[in-house]
Amino acid sequence: MTTDVDTFRRRTSDAQQRLRERGSDGLVLFPSRNLRYLAGYSEEPGERHFLLFVPAEGEAVFFVPALSGDQIREASWVDDVRTWNDAEDPVPRIADIAAELDLAAGHLLVDDTMWALFTQDLRDALPDATFGLASEVLGDLRVRKDDAELDAMRRAGAVADETVRDLRAMGEEALGLSEAELAAEIEELLESNGGTGVAFETIVGAGPNGAKPHHHHGDREITPGEPVVLDFGTRVDGYPSDQTRTLVFGGEPSERFREVHEIVREAQQAGVDAVEPGVTAESVDDATREVIEDAGYGDEFIHRTGHGVGLDVHEEPYIVEGNERELQPGMVFSVEPGIYLLGEFGVRIEDLVVVTEEGCERLNDTDRGWAC
Amino acid sequence: MTTDVDTFRRRTSDAQQRLRERGSDGLVLFPSRNLRYLAGYSEEPGERHFLLFVPAEGEAVFFVPALSGDQIREASWVDDVRTWNDAEDPVPRIADIAAELDLAAGHLLVDDTMWALFTQDLRDALPDATFGLASEVLGDLRVRKDDAELDAMRRAGAVADETVRDLRAMGEEALGLSEAELAAEIEELLESNGGTGVAFETIVGAGPNGAKPHHHHGDREITPGEPVVLDFGTRVDGYPSDQTRTLVFGGEPSERFREVHEIVREAQQAGVDAVEPGVTAESVDDATREVIEDAGYGDEFIHRTGHGVGLDVHEEPYIVEGNERELQPGMVFSVEPGIYLLGEFGVRIEDLVVVTEEGCERLNDTDRGWAC
Repeated sequence: MTTDVDTFRRRTSDAQQRLRERGSDGLVLFPSRNLRYLAGYSEEPGERHFLLFVPAEGEAVFFVPALSGDQIREASWVDDVRTWNDAEDPVPRIADIAAELDLAAGHLLVDDTMWALFTQDLRDALPDATFGLASEVLGDLRVRKDDAELDAMRRAGAVADETVRDLRAMGEEALGLSEAELAAEIEELLESNGGTGVAFETIVGAGPNGAKPHHHHGDREITPGEPVVLDFGTRVDGYPSDQTRTLVFGGEPSERFREVHEIVREAQQAGVDAVEPGVTAESVDDATREVIEDAGYGDEFIHRTGHGVGLDVHEEPYIVEGNERELQPGMVFSVEPGIYLLGEFGVRIEDLVVVTEEGCERLNDTDRGWAC
Repeated sequence: MTTDVDTFRRRTSDAQQRLRERGSDGLVLFPSRNLRYLAGYSEEPGERHFLLFVPAEGEAVFFVPALSGDQIREASWVDDVRTWNDAEDPVPRIADIAAELDLAAGHLLVDDTMWALFTQDLRDALPDATFGLASEVLGDLRVRKDDAELDAMRRAGAVADETVRDLRAMGEEALGLSEAELAAEIEELLESNGGTGVAFETIVGAGPNGAKPHHHHGDREITPGEPVVLDFGTRVDGYPSDQTRTLVFGGEPSERFREVHEIVREAQQAGVDAVEPGVTAESVDDATREVIEDAGYGDEFIHRTGHGVGLDVHEEPYIVEGNERELQPGMVFSVEPGIYLLGEFGVRIEDLVVVTEEGCERLNDTDRGWAC
């Protein structure tokens, strides 16, 4: 990871200022992207109580399982790391720490992804506290990416682009593979092109499976003339790529597919063209949707146009009807219209873009056509 | 997945009976292991509202994003699947469904892992409801595995055993690899031996890194004479393996390591020997801890002896001081004592066991020694 201690301290102090401005008393985080963003430490959530208290004023305190203590002391800039062991009940300790930080009767913002197991214990331990969500202060902070973040995301985008080029180069070699085999191939390509792991479950949707936007991959074979929706991502320095292309690996697709693909391509371009500082998130959704509705496929575009991307693959700004949030430089999101013809095929084309002072920059830039 | 519709229906009806017995009015699940256990459908949690309502009496209702609707109708036995689309506010719909199911002022048990994002919305949508955790009823149900579950876990255990044999066969070939490279090798072996993916982040802790129980893997090289803690798991039909061996891939380890390894091996055997129906979970912890304390390393055994394993890699019964839960046939858990010498090395040996009518059966049975 390239982010340094000063960056984490600055983010934490920005978050504390926002807490004070909103009249909230503190953040309570658990293993989450927010924790990584502020403390520089990440791990998967587990059943053991693992909390970071960030009061609106003063120093942050970690309260973590004994067996994570040393790693956190090594990895994070937060100095005050307190541990509990498996034979202890952590809940009274939580009450003590909250009292010490003057949070016991405060308004506390918990991680949006914090498990009910822990929010219930917080409610029990702190009966006089009230609760909101950490995104109320961290959302605005995380939504505008700093230079280190944009740098990581540009590199992740380049890995995705390279992988699309490799897939096109496979061409007819892909025929006869199952969706699952092609997904495994994609995941290897992402690694060999410089990515780390997958940012979300790889989607390979052949023929009618492509018409189910959240189908992952199965036994269906890639066959000549049948479109395949390919939606995959990896991470670079913790930041994800997210890109979709709809390809035909050999043979001739139907006239209807060609027509639908062209509509989606135009819609995607219209969405990207609509991005600039000061416009609303929903106006980008309007732009893609207008193209698809005009072409008569409005009912087959069954999801929003996009989602913000950062440490989380799905975060603000959501590019959706009703989201009047103004786009600002540094925001990164997907533009990914699609048309889904149940029982036939689907088409989706997706790139990430970052809002710039003048308009936007695409983080993905490989050919958007269907031919290999 | 080998589980059939009747199994899911039976589990759901068992859960409903337990709800009634406890005077609770319903379960509210989101994408979780509980959802998979009852509804036969699994996916990763996301930011969109995705809920399953299971009232204490009557039929279950799914409330899911439009783009997941078709897959759920195909994959789950639950007939009543209602969808919302991205341009809608799902919260009033939640209130309507709860009212229809007579849950609006009920006591509702939410998934233990449900995100605060959704529990906050449930509290807002249902101001007269009270909340508890789904584990209050599903814990007892899930803790005793049925035959299909045990079958999957035996097969997962065999994959882990085979992978340990492969690692021993590598022997000196592993010298010079980094921990991360060896972890990648392990993950490939797990797949080629019949597993699907990893059940948790693979741990390869060489030398002093082995003394940090939750270290994953890094750049440190495997060197002659240096012990390596190897803790990894995969899944078969959705059920995980979880096994640890501490190996020396070449050269001669220190006397102190040999001595510590032997103590941990004895402790692990003592734990397994203590398992039988009717004894408490903590008594198994006592058994391993006594061996390690008697040998003078009590302070270096810094975690509990084990954890239950099922759809979740960590679930009840936790094998820990203070857990007076009685062991019953069909419970599956790890027995994994360890000794961690900070700055030097760690030793952990872990097998899964299932409680039987007479005692227990190990789900892992490869050599527990350190030599390759």
